[in-house]
Amino acid sequence: MGNIHGHLFRISTFGESHGPGIGVVIDGCPPRVPFDLQFLQSELARRRPGQSDLTTARKEADAVEILSGVSTDNLTLGSPIALLIRNTDQRPSAYKEMQKAYRPSHADFTYDAKYGIRAVEGGGRASARETAARVAAGAVAKTVLHHACGAKIVAWVESVQDIRMPEPSKLPTEKSVEANLCRCPHPATATRIEARIREARAEGDSVGGVIRCVITGLPAGLGEPVFDRLEADLAKAMLSLPATKGFEIGSGFAGTLLRGSQHNDAFVKRSGRIRTTTNRSGGIQGGISNGEDIDFRIAFKPTATVLRPQTTVEKSGKATEISARGRHDPCVLPRAVPIVEAMAALVLVDHWMRDRAQNASFGKCGRTR
Amino acid sequence: MGNIHGHLFRISTFGESHGPGIGVVIDGCPPRVPFDLQFLQSELARRRPGQSDLTTARKEADAVEILSGVSTDNLTLGSPIALLIRNTDQRPSAYKEMQKAYRPSHADFTYDAKYGIRAVEGGGRASARETAARVAAGAVAKTVLHHACGAKIVAWVESVQDIRMPEPSKLPTEKSVEANLCRCPHPATATRIEARIREARAEGDSVGGVIRCVITGLPAGLGEPVFDRLEADLAKAMLSLPATKGFEIGSGFAGTLLRGSQHNDAFVKRSGRIRTTTNRSGGIQGGISNGEDIDFRIAFKPTATVLRPQTTVEKSGKATEISARGRHDPCVLPRAVPIVEAMAALVLVDHWMRDRAQNASFGKCGRTR
Amino acid sequence: MGNIHGHLFRISTFGESHGPGIGVVIDGCPPRVPFDLQFLQSELARRRPGQSDLTTARKEADAVEILSGVSTDNLTLGSPIALLIRNTDQRPSAYKEMQKAYRPSHADFTYDAKYGIRAVEGGGRASARETAARVAAGAVAKTVLHHACGAKIVAWVESVQDIRMPEPSKLPTEKSVEANLCRCPHPATATRIEARIREARAEGDSVGGVIRCVITGLPAGLGEPVFDRLEADLAKAMLSLPATKGFEIGSGFAGTLLRGSQHNDAFVKRSGRIRTTTNRSGGIQGGISNGEDIDFRIAFKPTATVLRPQTTVEKSGKATEISARGRHDPCVLPRAVPIVEAMAALVLVDHWMRDRAQNASFGKCGRTR
Amino acid sequence: MGNIHGHLFRISTFGESHGPGIGVVIDGCPPRVPFDLQFLQSELARRRPGQSDLTTARKEADAVEILSGVSTDNLTLGSPIALLIRNTDQRPSAYKEMQKAYRPSHADFTYDAKYGIRAVEGGGRASARETAARVAAGAVAKTVLHHACGAKIVAWVESVQDIRMPEPSKLPTEKSVEANLCRCPHPATATRIEARIREARAEGDSVGGVIRCVITGLPAGLGEPVFDRLEADLAKAMLSLPATKGFEIGSGFAGTLLRGSQHNDAFVKRSGRIRTTTNRSGGIQGGISNGEDIDFRIAFKPTATVLRPQTTVEKSGKATEISARGRHDPCVLPRAVPIVEAMAALVLVDHWMRDRAQNASFGKCGRTR
Repeated sequence: MGNIHGHLFRISTFGESHGPGIGVVIDGCPPRVPFDLQFLQSELARRRPGQSDLTTARKEADAVEILSGVSTDNLTLGSPIALLIRNTDQRPSAYKEMQKAYRPSHADFTYDAKYGIRAVEGGGRASARETAARVAAGAVAKTVLHHACGAKIVAWVESVQDIRMPEPSKLPTEKSVEANLCRCPHPATATRIEARIREARAEGDSVGGVIRCVITGLPAGLGEPVFDRLEADLAKAMLSLPATKGFEIGSGFAGTLLRGSQHNDAFVKRSGRIRTTTNRSGGIQGGISNGEDIDFRIAFKPTATVLRPQTTVEKSGKATEISARGRHDPCVLPRAVPIVEAMAALVLVDHWMRDRAQNASFGKCGRTR
Repeated sequence: MGNIHGHLFRISTFGESHGPGIGVVIDGCPPRVPFDLQFLQSELARRRPGQSDLTTARKEADAVEILSGVSTDNLTLGSPIALLIRNTDQRPSAYKEMQKAYRPSHADFTYDAKYGIRAVEGGGRASARETAARVAAGAVAKTVLHHACGAKIVAWVESVQDIRMPEPSKLPTEKSVEANLCRCPHPATATRIEARIREARAEGDSVGGVIRCVITGLPAGLGEPVFDRLEADLAKAMLSLPATKGFEIGSGFAGTLLRGSQHNDAFVKRSGRIRTTTNRSGGIQGGISNGEDIDFRIAFKPTATVLRPQTTVEKSGKATEISARGRHDPCVLPRAVPIVEAMAALVLVDHWMRDRAQNASFGKCGRTR
Repeated sequence: MGNIHGHLFRISTFGESHGPGIGVVIDGCPPRVPFDLQFLQSELARRRPGQSDLTTARKEADAVEILSGVSTDNLTLGSPIALLIRNTDQRPSAYKEMQKAYRPSHADFTYDAKYGIRAVEGGGRASARETAARVAAGAVAKTVLHHACGAKIVAWVESVQDIRMPEPSKLPTEKSVEANLCRCPHPATATRIEARIREARAEGDSVGGVIRCVITGLPAGLGEPVFDRLEADLAKAMLSLPATKGFEIGSGFAGTLLRGSQHNDAFVKRSGRIRTTTNRSGGIQGGISNGEDIDFRIAFKPTATVLRPQTTVEKSGKATEISARGRHDPCVLPRAVPIVEAMAALVLVDHWMRDRAQNASFGKCGRTR
Repeated sequence: MGNIHGHLFRISTFGESHGPGIGVVIDGCPPRVPFDLQFLQSELARRRPGQSDLTTARKEADAVEILSGVSTDNLTLGSPIALLIRNTDQRPSAYKEMQKAYRPSHADFTYDAKYGIRAVEGGGRASARETAARVAAGAVAKTVLHHACGAKIVAWVESVQDIRMPEPSKLPTEKSVEANLCRCPHPATATRIEARIREARAEGDSVGGVIRCVITGLPAGLGEPVFDRLEADLAKAMLSLPATKGFEIGSGFAGTLLRGSQHNDAFVKRSGRIRTTTNRSGGIQGGISNGEDIDFRIAFKPTATVLRPQTTVEKSGKATEISARGRHDPCVLPRAVPIVEAMAALVLVDHWMRDRAQNASFGKCGRTR
């Protein structure tokens, strides 16, 4: 359980870090949407290991094979789209120590506690490698979203440890995010962040930080009251990512310092649309989008894998020491940027479909044969 | 959509703020669990409006009628448990202005944008009154959880604006939380928080803050990999509450400042169990509980309803001014404490059931009749 | 579990036969649909006990209280619609014998086997009384369906035991179905069926039969491939009704006698639409509606409650004899007609919503703000 | 949508008839269950095309590749099990005519009506080839079921057209079913059925019939009240199979001819268990298994593909004639036997998991680690 996401745009992911491959089946994708394999591969390239000296050295081409759901002229068929990414650069031998001892702050112990069995190599299902399947599905979701309502998603690294970029005067573009290795669109901050990551790597250590994500062009009316609020589903999607420890939207934790009279977003009419003058709500009110930018942040802890000896126990409980030997990222944030965008896209497409199922006008949207 | 929560312990809530009543149907509750109506009412009393001068003056007894699912000797039957709470203190006249103008940072506009219709009085379905149904269902979930594994949930107000209690040396008890009106277990901080809330109320304004929640006694192994991680479902549950803007677990946003070597929780064996020496993971690793305390925080914004004139628009977009007249809370946090606990209980029971469906041993747990 | 139906138009039912009442919460109903309480009550009146000497003598007004989800001017709000029907004519004393002994072909034994507890009176949750909640929800579904695509559902009693009406030359109308007590639209057959039911009642016995249901005006394109085929969901909905033993669509079991060349439905163009010349498919091909009439039959066994002494056992396994004393129907079919229609409506609305979520055109159906 | 089955043992299938391959992802499989690839392949061999002159000539080895979810020592990991079957014998050229004209009683027209696009070759997603994925998943479900409660499933061909085997004096074994090409365990009837199928094939025609399925050894207590009754879920599973037109359980349609006093199954105690003397209920009462044999039948129509010219229309509505050229089965029943068993296994495992989630004892079944 737990490997299926979405109520209408449903993805089912599979795969272990060092098994034959990982992949995803998308059920519920609207038909006749252009399937852009090149775009999908470019999204995967942003998440790919080995893309720079800031990331793990594991080499994976992450070439996608389309197993189903796409027509010969590259349109979605409405049937399940199955995508397979073969694992190629496995080094199971690097994980022999993990067989015996539990890596601190990894999922080795909890998988054993839950299942009584685990795929040891590379963390098996618990490896961040599974997120490649999310990015693949997210690329399809982004395409649907683009055709559905033109919404755009951009995420970036806002801070690593205490190095934090200043509040941008205008929304960063994907180009500015991709302009440097660490995916921070503020060049001066990026330089410092990259130095910090290299420093941590050199010392066999790791660092964490905060990713910010903004969605523009989303119409008002997406989301649900009560349990499936749009921010609730975004929070779940983000906290489902490996290494995440927090989520905040709009004013977030800092908003708790304000008074209501300072915090409220006043309504005005602008360019024929009802807008708000400020956006402390983060684009969502009462669980439903209000047409302003969706704006949220996610906290990522420092990578659990460090190359220093750490105190731990074997399965029996016997005390021991462990030093990581598998390849790893000294900082997950640069590669997490496209993953955050992918999860956001998956949530939004699902809510877009839910909304039109219930709320699209009858006369206009009923089937006309 | 959006009014059903849970995969196995499924609750379906209903009701508008000023309609006949609100309620919940629980489907999937294990049978033969003692149904403790007195406990349920005491939980509702903690959430009840009008409980002190810190809260809204609306008077609601919140008396629960059991419509189904409980045997004559007060055991759950395994069939749906339907609970109904009548609304009694409605004053729809207080909401006439809301008919025309959108209250800033409320859901008036987004409901109109989504549904093209809304129940104006008291915010209708968007009112926090719906959370009474969550508390009622949560009380049942707490009882099941108690019998299932003895886990206990305690939440409290940690801060209001910049007034923050010191880190407690030991876990606050429910008794210490309930010892004062604002549900902050640190008496000196509580006094200051209460003064701050009264000050905001006197000025027709409102304040926000942070609630912390800790779950003890939960066995290792609950949660799911990938999408339905335990912290992801907790984050969703908490962000589904009105007025929430953020969620963090374990080290949270502050954890992004640390290095991996500082952040990791070392494993040790203690009292025959594998434990961690620190708990920056917040009791969850790889999405699955590790047997340590689950420990998270939720940010609540200042209440959107303020008694000062605010700039807004009418449905047509015409600029206008609005001043709240409906009764409201100057700070939602004191009453939100039992709601946070209820949502946590609902998430945990659901995961407890999911876990034993998949992972309980066959020989021991298969039906033997 | 098991008390929730539908993926988008979701109903959650509750209630025991002799508890305070039964009811339903509908989540996902489109907004701004006229809510016709009078129609809803008229549908319930068709299912009501005590409507004639062919049915149980239990007297229930089945008056519906609307608890939520409907505006003051009788439009659906898009929020959950909760409907409550109080039980009024309970006679728990009539069920004392059932406390000890299991009634043959009832659910007394299986509920005990599953839950280890049961509401004895009237069969508790297993009573056909729960179907009133289905009819109430079905009335709302029928209204939505009418506004969505104009589809109409009509069901009738086709046979009781070996008394079977001839194949009608044209589709029976609801009026012709309601023209007699047993809801068989062929008057001569109806007379014989009513006599047969009275004969069974007089002898303390019961009879079963076949209900046929036809849906007209449904557009082509509703349904799903593979698991959620339209006929599969209809079959599930019908087999979820008490006392049902079989389902067949189109040519059904008799179709197994034909050859493919005889069975296939040839396509032709008629009145600008692609049609079939015959309808052995029953309006569904590959799980998806083809625009022809949906046409299916359901087998209902003779009522399990008979007033004759029957061999059975007590909970301990001790042999005993039991004679029914509770009021009951000598034949469930006349009252089952509106229930069949209700379940069909629930399935169709759900599929209509699923279809437009995935397949409505983007340009036409996207939200336009 | 519609390509995911199950609530806890969840399978997500994919693949078109003439695409790269078909497959399934199983989410929720209990861990540490022996994964028997040989058994899985043997189940697929029973469904495989080209297995005899009674079936289509398409040659597919149906060799399964395990992509994930199984440990190196062949135990399930609790993570998703992904299985891929490559298509090898595609002849898309055979389907050129289908591009233009709709095959009668196939899904060509309805897929176009729903999706506005379709994979023409071999019917794409609508091809019965998708059922290989069901059989693969069903083999895993059978294994789980065996370890969970020892239940066994056996299905067989009971009739083809009017040729019907006599009621067996004892339950047919899988061996007796597999003893002949048409999977009818009564040798004399099998001979006649095979002749009938060959006759139809020789004449370019097709035939249908009835499959019966019996499940033994299932404990009492599986199933749910109201919507997810065990027979309802079985009916849905069976009607989700291509070419099915009917389902009946226990006494079925014939049971409608009896009186209640004749139809009821008397309870007795036998060998320490509460049993019934007859089994007109088909092993299910009130939607829940009673420990007797589950016993149901499914009607399969004659294959829609016939080699004779048939009247139909092109997409434009223009009248035309079509003759099948693709390879096909003159009778689907022999190959449908393992598919019926697979679907039954999937339903039962899901209900077994649902039941123990809600109803297994607390003390015994709670996690003890």
